[in-house]
Amino acid sequence: MQALLERLRAIVGAPHVLTGGDLTAWEQDWRRRERGRALAVVRPASTQEVAAVVRACAAAGSSIVPQGGNTGLVVGSTPDGSGTQVVLGTTRMAAIRAIDADNLTVTVEAGCILQNLQDAAEKAGFLFPLSLAAEGSCTIGGNLGTNAGGTQVVRYGNARELCLGLEVVTPQGEVWDGLSGLRKDNTGYDLRALFIGSEGTLGIITAATMKLYPLPAAQLTAWAAVPSLDAAVALLGLAHRHLGAGLTGFEVMNRFALGLVARHMPQLRVPFVERDDFPYCVLLENSDSESEEHARARFEALLETALEAGCVADAVVAESLGQARELWHVRENIPLAQAEEGLNIKHDISLPVSRIPAFCAETDALLAQEIAGVRLVNFGHLGDGNLHYNVQAPEQGDPKEFLRTQEARINHLVYEAVARFGGSFSAEHGVGGLKVDELAHYKPPAALAMMRAIKRALDPQNTMNPGRVL
Amino acid sequence: MQALLERLRAIVGAPHVLTGGDLTAWEQDWRRRERGRALAVVRPASTQEVAAVVRACAAAGSSIVPQGGNTGLVVGSTPDGSGTQVVLGTTRMAAIRAIDADNLTVTVEAGCILQNLQDAAEKAGFLFPLSLAAEGSCTIGGNLGTNAGGTQVVRYGNARELCLGLEVVTPQGEVWDGLSGLRKDNTGYDLRALFIGSEGTLGIITAATMKLYPLPAAQLTAWAAVPSLDAAVALLGLAHRHLGAGLTGFEVMNRFALGLVARHMPQLRVPFVERDDFPYCVLLENSDSESEEHARARFEALLETALEAGCVADAVVAESLGQARELWHVRENIPLAQAEEGLNIKHDISLPVSRIPAFCAETDALLAQEIAGVRLVNFGHLGDGNLHYNVQAPEQGDPKEFLRTQEARINHLVYEAVARFGGSFSAEHGVGGLKVDELAHYKPPAALAMMRAIKRALDPQNTMNPGRVL
Repeated sequence: MQALLERLRAIVGAPHVLTGGDLTAWEQDWRRRERGRALAVVRPASTQEVAAVVRACAAAGSSIVPQGGNTGLVVGSTPDGSGTQVVLGTTRMAAIRAIDADNLTVTVEAGCILQNLQDAAEKAGFLFPLSLAAEGSCTIGGNLGTNAGGTQVVRYGNARELCLGLEVVTPQGEVWDGLSGLRKDNTGYDLRALFIGSEGTLGIITAATMKLYPLPAAQLTAWAAVPSLDAAVALLGLAHRHLGAGLTGFEVMNRFALGLVARHMPQLRVPFVERDDFPYCVLLENSDSESEEHARARFEALLETALEAGCVADAVVAESLGQARELWHVRENIPLAQAEEGLNIKHDISLPVSRIPAFCAETDALLAQEIAGVRLVNFGHLGDGNLHYNVQAPEQGDPKEFLRTQEARINHLVYEAVARFGGSFSAEHGVGGLKVDELAHYKPPAALAMMRAIKRALDPQNTMNPGRVL
Repeated sequence: MQALLERLRAIVGAPHVLTGGDLTAWEQDWRRRERGRALAVVRPASTQEVAAVVRACAAAGSSIVPQGGNTGLVVGSTPDGSGTQVVLGTTRMAAIRAIDADNLTVTVEAGCILQNLQDAAEKAGFLFPLSLAAEGSCTIGGNLGTNAGGTQVVRYGNARELCLGLEVVTPQGEVWDGLSGLRKDNTGYDLRALFIGSEGTLGIITAATMKLYPLPAAQLTAWAAVPSLDAAVALLGLAHRHLGAGLTGFEVMNRFALGLVARHMPQLRVPFVERDDFPYCVLLENSDSESEEHARARFEALLETALEAGCVADAVVAESLGQARELWHVRENIPLAQAEEGLNIKHDISLPVSRIPAFCAETDALLAQEIAGVRLVNFGHLGDGNLHYNVQAPEQGDPKEFLRTQEARINHLVYEAVARFGGSFSAEHGVGGLKVDELAHYKPPAALAMMRAIKRALDPQNTMNPGRVL
């Protein structure tokens, strides 16, 4: 081990091989569910250094845990407790290598903070549409490793759909230069898509070429109270028809979730929260390539149609950027309001949009029947069929005790229901270390066998983030 | 072999195991470049029958060539000359299993003709946007196996981007049910993307869940003469800004290509063909979720700006659906006009859009210098960086002799230039049997090694379309 550390210091420089001091930021996961112990945290500054680090670790038989901003929610980017794994942090590789305006692409290094990439794109007159809560600290490498989703997937897709090419260091320490600004390239298997979402188990993404979009001329936000989830789904259909690709956000939130925001963030105005004639609200975003006036007219036509059709009970369109931001803050603060309220159990599930109303009706009832005092914080990206279907500990009783005794059972009830409705137990957060058992249980055996065969084929020594995903 | 044939007859029924008579339609490739010989053509009617056929072939050590409409352009779906391969035709599996309107998805069997899928979607009030010349006879299974592109990729992406889930029979004859209407599902490796574009070398796609879109309220087509390729690229940037996601088509055609259409299809009116002040024309399509009036206003604003900026010399917007169709016919008839003119050498290349003007300037000059009398038919999907950069045999001399002596050399010159400019030697047609050497030569060794490892891992007996792609 000492020899390996010496070798790593020679590659990246002694100051960038951390072995002592407080390594909490690298060893503990974002939600503080687990704390591992690393042999060292190594912070290379270039692709060649990453490759050399990988070769050194492979030669020493040490495994590697790639890490970006360490904001993952499923314990996928922290070391295990063995004290033998090397955490490879990418944040020193943060350059935006090039923006190609005519090709609508940007080539960026893995350690670049998502928000910095958004800002650089905007400065050049473009939109980089990936947007999620952790954008101030997560990295584009982590976004790609986990195929991050977020709030604009309904229009722009997940991280995978935004990526045209990758640079990867393989488990053998070779560099695959697959950076490409090509929108069509049918020369063999899609390795790009395979690495995206593989959570560091097949190699290390060191850079990527990502799509850019023209900045919209206007972006408007609306907030609608809906009489049911069926109505929310009907509103989504209307929004697709009326706005086309202008529909860039479609979020749903149940009343209990909004009540928590109103209670714990009294400075935020939550529209319609005082009314008791609606179970859900929807936040809609309309991005327009023409003008704010046009965006508003289209939005108003949509909401009028929806009011007439009965799928909206009441609605407001934000009058200013400030108002729009406040509406988004309400949505974004639900997780924080949940935390203020106390302990809770999180799920990140997806379903066919058409099956969401029946799923919620059945599963809400099931949980209410099985778990005394259950409180559901149900919100998410309805446009993508993605719900954060969370369970708050009951108002009475000891929440820690509740979690200890009920978490496994609640997870089981929810995931079994998800499977019955043809859904996924992990929509955008991934598998990491936390959902390995669920993957083994819910994935069809034929798919699992193929994934394991691919892992063995590309990483026969099992040195890349072992124990995660598979 | 007799025992295998008996087994196959028992599985699919004797009338669906073809061994005698004229098997040209299955044994010869679309462009009639190669004629193979099959042990039998087997036409299963269900996924379970496909699985049984695969198991029978695997047990007998016979390899399988999956085939849809057999319209591929790179000899990927026809048997070799050994007489030992089984062609597995999917066209009896053509059902549209379900349309899920609220989820904007359709689940369809592999053998469904693309046009039938487009029609079924439209009948249900939706758009299925994949569109290409062979749509009247190609199948969705073939489209997915080859990751088909076509004319609307600039807005909707390739076949891969339109697919949410697959049903696949593995080389071991197991059925993987990965059909899913989920827009977010981060549970392990993206097997879907891996099978799409693998050209039948990893397994057989038997069904798929595909995305649907709302039908646009209006679709308009414009035709612009541009003073240069640089101007065409500038026009593309303006179109992205003005039309946003309304831009659903952006095709470029050089004057020589248009001249061939005018000469060989005198019934078609080719705008501006009599003028000699432009080297290229562009065909633009604008799909609008609002109205024809709005689409026209946006189109006119774009073209006015482009005229002022000097990147358009002259332009017309089609006044009727009939006019629009005629403009598209001009574009679509270029390959036929080429064939009427005589023998030619086809390339299907892609480049970063920004590098296309320099690539063409350099490569046009190189070919003119190296190949006496060379005539370039340059057209394609500029919005995706995809050119069909074709070489017509010289007006004088024997065209067969030209092809025999010059084809390899011209391919080499073009593909080397493509590589220098960071492009791909196969944008949308795939590798098949025709471009195996190019793949081995131009793909980075690290990528090639990973592809081969994946092929070995998933198809260790090498029974799935051997000799194709890798």
